[in-house]
Amino acid sequence: MSHPFDSIAGVYTYAVEAGIKTAGYDVGILAVPEAVACAGVYTQNSFSASSVHFTKKNMKTTVFKAALITSGNANAATGEQGAQDTKELAQLTAKALGLRTKEVAVANTGIIGVPLPMSVIRPALKAIPSPFESRQGSALAHAILTTDLVEKTVSAQAKVGKKMIQVAGITKGSGMIEPNMATTLGFFVTNAHISQKRLQECLKKAINCSYNMMSVDTDTSTNDMVLCFATGEHKIAENDAEQLEAFQGILNDACIQAAQAIARDGEGASKYIEVEVKEAASLKDARGLAKLVINSPLVKTAIHGEDPNWGRIMMALGKNPAIKINPDKVSIFIGSQCLFKKGVPTGIKRELVKTQLEKKDVYISVECGIGKATASAFGCDLTKGYIDINTDYN
Amino acid sequence: MSHPFDSIAGVYTYAVEAGIKTAGYDVGILAVPEAVACAGVYTQNSFSASSVHFTKKNMKTTVFKAALITSGNANAATGEQGAQDTKELAQLTAKALGLRTKEVAVANTGIIGVPLPMSVIRPALKAIPSPFESRQGSALAHAILTTDLVEKTVSAQAKVGKKMIQVAGITKGSGMIEPNMATTLGFFVTNAHISQKRLQECLKKAINCSYNMMSVDTDTSTNDMVLCFATGEHKIAENDAEQLEAFQGILNDACIQAAQAIARDGEGASKYIEVEVKEAASLKDARGLAKLVINSPLVKTAIHGEDPNWGRIMMALGKNPAIKINPDKVSIFIGSQCLFKKGVPTGIKRELVKTQLEKKDVYISVECGIGKATASAFGCDLTKGYIDINTDYN
Repeated sequence: MSHPFDSIAGVYTYAVEAGIKTAGYDVGILAVPEAVACAGVYTQNSFSASSVHFTKKNMKTTVFKAALITSGNANAATGEQGAQDTKELAQLTAKALGLRTKEVAVANTGIIGVPLPMSVIRPALKAIPSPFESRQGSALAHAILTTDLVEKTVSAQAKVGKKMIQVAGITKGSGMIEPNMATTLGFFVTNAHISQKRLQECLKKAINCSYNMMSVDTDTSTNDMVLCFATGEHKIAENDAEQLEAFQGILNDACIQAAQAIARDGEGASKYIEVEVKEAASLKDARGLAKLVINSPLVKTAIHGEDPNWGRIMMALGKNPAIKINPDKVSIFIGSQCLFKKGVPTGIKRELVKTQLEKKDVYISVECGIGKATASAFGCDLTKGYIDINTDYN
Repeated sequence: MSHPFDSIAGVYTYAVEAGIKTAGYDVGILAVPEAVACAGVYTQNSFSASSVHFTKKNMKTTVFKAALITSGNANAATGEQGAQDTKELAQLTAKALGLRTKEVAVANTGIIGVPLPMSVIRPALKAIPSPFESRQGSALAHAILTTDLVEKTVSAQAKVGKKMIQVAGITKGSGMIEPNMATTLGFFVTNAHISQKRLQECLKKAINCSYNMMSVDTDTSTNDMVLCFATGEHKIAENDAEQLEAFQGILNDACIQAAQAIARDGEGASKYIEVEVKEAASLKDARGLAKLVINSPLVKTAIHGEDPNWGRIMMALGKNPAIKINPDKVSIFIGSQCLFKKGVPTGIKRELVKTQLEKKDVYISVECGIGKATASAFGCDLTKGYIDINTDYN
């Protein structure tokens, strides 16, 4: 099956094994030469990498036509040399693609504090085929991975007005994952025609209910970046609230799929966990509560041990005194089983809940009983595999 | 050696194996019948247990003369029955000790959501010896433990004016530990004569630089409570800034020792980690940065793997964009070795730093280079032992 990027008109993809990583694709290009808009969200880590500075700055005054992505080295904490290397990556890519330097977004992921091995990247970029018409979506999806075990490609589509609007994307991430406005790398393309300003607003909203609701380990990378290109094929009537909402729905769908894929592939994860909080006092509270549960090491280890420990879920819900919650109105479910109903343990037999916990996907839901806001968070269990990966990684 | 509680005049201690836990002391009493003041700090978890409600409320209008502490059952999420049980614990203790019910603080720790086994506790409390003159400090220190591997007793003393002022304490905690105004249980006694209002202020300050700077796993218990009794033996001149500061120093010392003891005994911990942040823009920022590093799973696993991964320390320092930090001015040390100096990796040989990491106690220090504030945080590494303890606990 062809990669969804490859079926969108005006989208070109390319990947090569330059030798940054010991094996596999590690340099990739996503090009949308006629892009009408490109939106981006970036890590808020104070030590953000030079690629983040470079791309964020240029996005203000240009529409990106391509992204150059390398994996295996984050080019973070590499000082002045790192900034020069980032610029050179954009220059070489622009030259090969016939673009201006500032039209090329740059993203890196990998180890921190080691200068980019430009001696292997330079020849790879100089060998980019011309004219640039390659369609290697799946190779590109692999080129952005690091500790990921699986390629992560997503796609969503629906009619907006009379046109079928599509959003396709690739993403990466497995550890150092708790987003703050954005996390990990994600590259999306839509066949919509939409202004950059509006696309930016839509992407931010989509990230807030997807990447920003996902956590593997509460750590935030220095290199996180999500970009979304619009090819301009099908016009969205931006002033039509219905069309805009429909487009937002497709973008949310694709971004949520991406966040779920990352959570599923969390370092060492044996189970995917989704937490839905309903009836919260506000959207902010609903999101905060869902994140408290998805982040709790004691909840994560209990799920790993397949134990219906609602006491730990309750503890996690109460951790932030700034979030409104009324213990007497809270109900807690695992799968379809209610363990705690309006402040009182239901005394349900452990065995009944065990069957829900033996599944690979575990769904926790919480009814707050004090409002109408709903939010979901995406995560995974905490296992010895996580300890192994992050203790013995040299 | 006798327990430090037992050498302070007017302090009585008692412990018994009631049978809440399968073995060991599980009901204890700390009594200071002539106490002139008692201060307390409590969990801010929204699902706080009935013991927290009961004790917090009564502290406003009384000077506690005793604390009744049980371990093995938290009496949390036990509804109306739980509140009645808490009251009965205080009543029975008060009767045995010749006190009023509201003069008895109650603290519980253990599993959540299971009613207190009053049928075994009641007879234990009815059998309290009268007159109550027992001095069983070490047994009491054991009676408050749950998953702790070791008893935690601390003591600090120094001259205030012409008098030797002492603060002695016992504490417990190993998992579900990230404080928020207070965490775990801690009971302190001082031989000072000080007003309850002033003691409360001093305890709050001491907690802020000790219990509130400690984290094992970022989870906050529903039952956390720290109390400090003053026997009234030696008068502190409360309006003398020098005497007050000297007393604060002793109390800080005892509380920091207690926090360090809990961090050292963190669930599954193989190494104790202390993070000192210097030259931060404000005390709040210094504390925030130290906590970001001590809480990072990727820093904790790197230390467990004895790898000098300063990139992860840097990442953790940058996680909260609300905290001021200038990447170009930051220096990072492990032990005495500088790994990152004013924004640039020092390129120090891994082997040189390895020797610092092979020790049981690992000291990380960070110089922010932008201010004068300093703070320390206390924690431990993240190991497979933590996963074991919290996965297979039934």
